[in-house]
Amino acid sequence: MPRQIRLNAFDMNCIGHQSPGLWTHPDDRADSYNTLEYWTDLARTLERGKFDALFLADVLGIYDVYQGSPRTALEQAVQVPVNDPLMVVPAMAAVTEYLGFGITCALSYELPYPFARRMSTLDHLTKGRVGWNIVTGYLDSAARGMGMPRQVAHDDRYDVAEDYMQAVYKLWEASWEDGAVLRERAGRRFADADKIHRILHEGPHFKVDAIHLCEPSPQRTPVLFQAGASKRGRDFAARHAECVFINGPSKKIVGGIVADLRQRAAQAGREPSDLVIFTMITVITDTTGKAARDKYQDYLGYVSEEGALALMSGWTGVDFGAMRPNDVVRFDDKANAQTSALEAFTTADPDREWTVAQIARHAAIGGRSPVLIGSAAEVAEQLRSWVEKTDVDGFNLAYALTPGSFADVADLVVPELQTRGLFKQDYAPGTLREKLFGRGPRLPGSHPAAAVRRTS
Amino acid sequence: MPRQIRLNAFDMNCIGHQSPGLWTHPDDRADSYNTLEYWTDLARTLERGKFDALFLADVLGIYDVYQGSPRTALEQAVQVPVNDPLMVVPAMAAVTEYLGFGITCALSYELPYPFARRMSTLDHLTKGRVGWNIVTGYLDSAARGMGMPRQVAHDDRYDVAEDYMQAVYKLWEASWEDGAVLRERAGRRFADADKIHRILHEGPHFKVDAIHLCEPSPQRTPVLFQAGASKRGRDFAARHAECVFINGPSKKIVGGIVADLRQRAAQAGREPSDLVIFTMITVITDTTGKAARDKYQDYLGYVSEEGALALMSGWTGVDFGAMRPNDVVRFDDKANAQTSALEAFTTADPDREWTVAQIARHAAIGGRSPVLIGSAAEVAEQLRSWVEKTDVDGFNLAYALTPGSFADVADLVVPELQTRGLFKQDYAPGTLREKLFGRGPRLPGSHPAAAVRRTS
Repeated sequence: MPRQIRLNAFDMNCIGHQSPGLWTHPDDRADSYNTLEYWTDLARTLERGKFDALFLADVLGIYDVYQGSPRTALEQAVQVPVNDPLMVVPAMAAVTEYLGFGITCALSYELPYPFARRMSTLDHLTKGRVGWNIVTGYLDSAARGMGMPRQVAHDDRYDVAEDYMQAVYKLWEASWEDGAVLRERAGRRFADADKIHRILHEGPHFKVDAIHLCEPSPQRTPVLFQAGASKRGRDFAARHAECVFINGPSKKIVGGIVADLRQRAAQAGREPSDLVIFTMITVITDTTGKAARDKYQDYLGYVSEEGALALMSGWTGVDFGAMRPNDVVRFDDKANAQTSALEAFTTADPDREWTVAQIARHAAIGGRSPVLIGSAAEVAEQLRSWVEKTDVDGFNLAYALTPGSFADVADLVVPELQTRGLFKQDYAPGTLREKLFGRGPRLPGSHPAAAVRRTS
Repeated sequence: MPRQIRLNAFDMNCIGHQSPGLWTHPDDRADSYNTLEYWTDLARTLERGKFDALFLADVLGIYDVYQGSPRTALEQAVQVPVNDPLMVVPAMAAVTEYLGFGITCALSYELPYPFARRMSTLDHLTKGRVGWNIVTGYLDSAARGMGMPRQVAHDDRYDVAEDYMQAVYKLWEASWEDGAVLRERAGRRFADADKIHRILHEGPHFKVDAIHLCEPSPQRTPVLFQAGASKRGRDFAARHAECVFINGPSKKIVGGIVADLRQRAAQAGREPSDLVIFTMITVITDTTGKAARDKYQDYLGYVSEEGALALMSGWTGVDFGAMRPNDVVRFDDKANAQTSALEAFTTADPDREWTVAQIARHAAIGGRSPVLIGSAAEVAEQLRSWVEKTDVDGFNLAYALTPGSFADVADLVVPELQTRGLFKQDYAPGTLREKLFGRGPRLPGSHPAAAVRRTS
C-alpha cells in the first residue's frame, strides 16, 4: 500500500488567517469566527473529508511591524481580532467523533501547572483527540501585553521551553500512576493515594511542587506539534515533537527541511519516522481545471496585498512598509534570526529573486505556502508528487476561503486521493496518537517524556 | 408581581463537589464529569428548568489541610481530580440558547491580557451568556503548584485583585470603541483603526501595554460574580460584583450578610439592588414529602464524613483531623481569617454549638449550605420564606446527586414556584446581564468599570 497522505486543516480563531482580504469575498465565512456555528460546521466538514486534524494557529499579539503600526492589521483584520483557540475545541469535539485538534498554545505566558490541567481536561473531553502545538511566540507586542518590554531573546525562549516541557511531562506522566484511579463505588474509594505523587520540579525558569489536578487522560501528554523553523527550533522539534509543521515555497526547500528534521530526530535517539511532518499548502480546486483557475482569478480580486505585507513583516521582523515595491528582498541572517520565513523566500530558493511586490502578491493567498490550482485529479497528483519528492507525510491546508476551500478538498480531492490509494478510507481507531502513529495512546519509550515516568 | 427567585445550579468540574461520598450512589453521575455528555445533558436539564445560570466552582489546589495530607481528598475524590471549568462551557453553550454560565477563574495565576481574551472569546461564543466569578484562591497547595512557597496574604490578595480588575476593565471597555468594527465587505475594511486604542496600565502588580485582542463581545465585561465572605471580600464585592454568592447555615446569618452587602454597595455609590445575591442551598425533593425524606435517608448511607472534614479543613485552614469528634469547634478570628466558613458555623449562630462530628455530618450533604427536604410544594414555600426573611435574590443550588438533584428542582420545584408567581415563565431576552438586571448589555455607569471608558 502506498504511503498514506495526512491532512490537517489550518485555521485560526480570527478573520484573516493566511489569505488577507479574502474575508470580503461573498462566499467567505471567516468573519463568523466568533460563533459556535462556524466551528461546529467546519468540524463536521473536516470529519466528512476524514481530515486527520484541525490545526489551530494562534498569536497573542498584533502585527505592528509593518509601517511601525498596527493600522493595516486592524483595518484588514490580519490575524486580529484573534480569539482564544482553546475555547472552540470542546464544541467541535461534541459534534465529531474522530477529528483531531492540534492547538497552538504559547508557553511563554502561562505557568505549567494550570496549563497542564487545561490540556488534560481537553484530552478527557475529546477522549484523546488533542494535540498541542508548542510555541514560544514571535511578536514583541505580545510581550508588552504581558507587562514586559519585549520578548525573551530567541534562543533563550527555547531554554525556557525545555524547562517548561520537563515540568509538564512530570505533571502528565509521573503524578498519577497507572492503576491509581479505582472508581470503586461499592468499595467507596475513588483512588489509591499511594499511587498518586507530588511532583517536584525545580528548573531554571519554573518551579512546581504539586500533584497534577487531573486523573490520567487517554493520551496523558497530548500529541506534540511543533513548528519552529530556526536551527534551534528544529532541534527542539527533533527532540520533543511528534508532528512537525513546516513551510517552504518549493519542493527543494521543503525536502531539505524534512531530511534535516529526520536526521536531527535520529541524532536525538528517535526514529526518523517518529516525526510526522506536515508542510503548509493551499489548494484551489473545482470540478475542472478551468473552473479552478477561474476561481483563483476571482479570488485575486479580493486579496489585500498590504495585508500580506503586514503579515510578512510580523513573521520576519522586517518592515516591508519601509521598502519600495520593486526592491529586491535579501535575507540577512543576523538581523532576521527570529524566523526563517524570509530565508525561505530569499536565499534558500536559489532559482529566483523576490521583490517586495512579488512577495505581497504571493503571500496574499495562502501566506507563505505554495498554492496548488487545478482539478481534483490534478491536485491529487501534485500532492502525490510533493510527498514523493520531499518525504513529507502530509499537508497543513491553509484556506483561501473558509469553509469553502476545506469543503472542496473534502468533497473533491480526498476521493481522488482515496482512488489512488493515497488516503485512508476510514479513520483508524483510538486516540489521535494511535490514529497518526498506529501505536499509543501514550508516548513511546524513546521520547523524552518517558524518562520522567515512575517505574513501578 | 412578587419578587422573582433566581436559580443557579452549583457544580464543579470534579466528582465530589459539596456532597462527599455521594458519587458512590448508583444514581449519581458525578464521576462522568470528564465527558462532554455529562455537561451537555446537565445544560439541557437546567435550561428545561429555566435556571438562570450554571455556576461553576473551581480550585487550583488540593485539600491537604486535613491530617496534613491530601490522602483523604484523593481517596474520596473531594474536589480532586478537578478539571478546568472553562473547557466545558463551549459545548454546553452549543446545546442551549438561554442558560447563563458563571465561571470561577482565579486571577492569582494568570495575566490580565490573555485572561481578558479568554473571557471575551467565551462571551462571543455564548452570545453574551458569560459571568466570571472572581476569586483569589484559598489553598497554599495551589500556590506551590505555581512555584511559590505559599499564597499571598489574604488582604494583599485583594490589592492584587483590585489592580487586576483595573487592567481587565481597560482591555474590555476602553480598547475598542463602539463603532470601531465596520465589517464592510464592499468597502474592504474590517475596522476603523482610529477607534481602536492601545491601553496602558501600570499598576502595582500588573502592567499591560496592548490593544485588546478581541473585538467587543456582547457584554464586553462579563457579568461579575464574587463570593468573598470576609470583610475585605465583601467590600470588594460591593464595589465590583453584580452577583454575589454567599452562604450561611440560617436565615438569620444569611439575612445579616445580605443587609451588610447592600449597605456596602450603597456606600460604594451603587444601588443596593445592583447586587443580585445568591445563597447556597441544597434541595432534596420528590413527589411527596415522605418520598423526599426517604431519599435523604437513602443518601445518608453514602456520605463520606471524613471527606466532609477534608473539605471543611481546606475551607477554614483548620485541621479537623487533629481534633476529636466531640470537640466543640470555636472560631478564632485571628487564626482563621482566610474564610468565614468556620465563623458561620461557630460564633455567628448564637443558637447552637457545633462539635466536629456534627460539622462532619452536616457538611457531608451540601457542604456548608442548609439542606431543604420535602415535597416540591414544601420546598417552594421554604424558598419563599428564605427570600422574604433574608432579602436574598435567589439560590445557588448545590447537588446531593447530579444531575438528579437539579432535575428534581427543574421538574418539580420550578413549576411550584411558577404557580406561586415566584419564578419566570420564560427567559427574558438578551444577554445574561439583561436577563438578570433588565438592563444592559453593558455595565451601568455607576460601576467602576465605566470609569475607564473613553468618552467620545
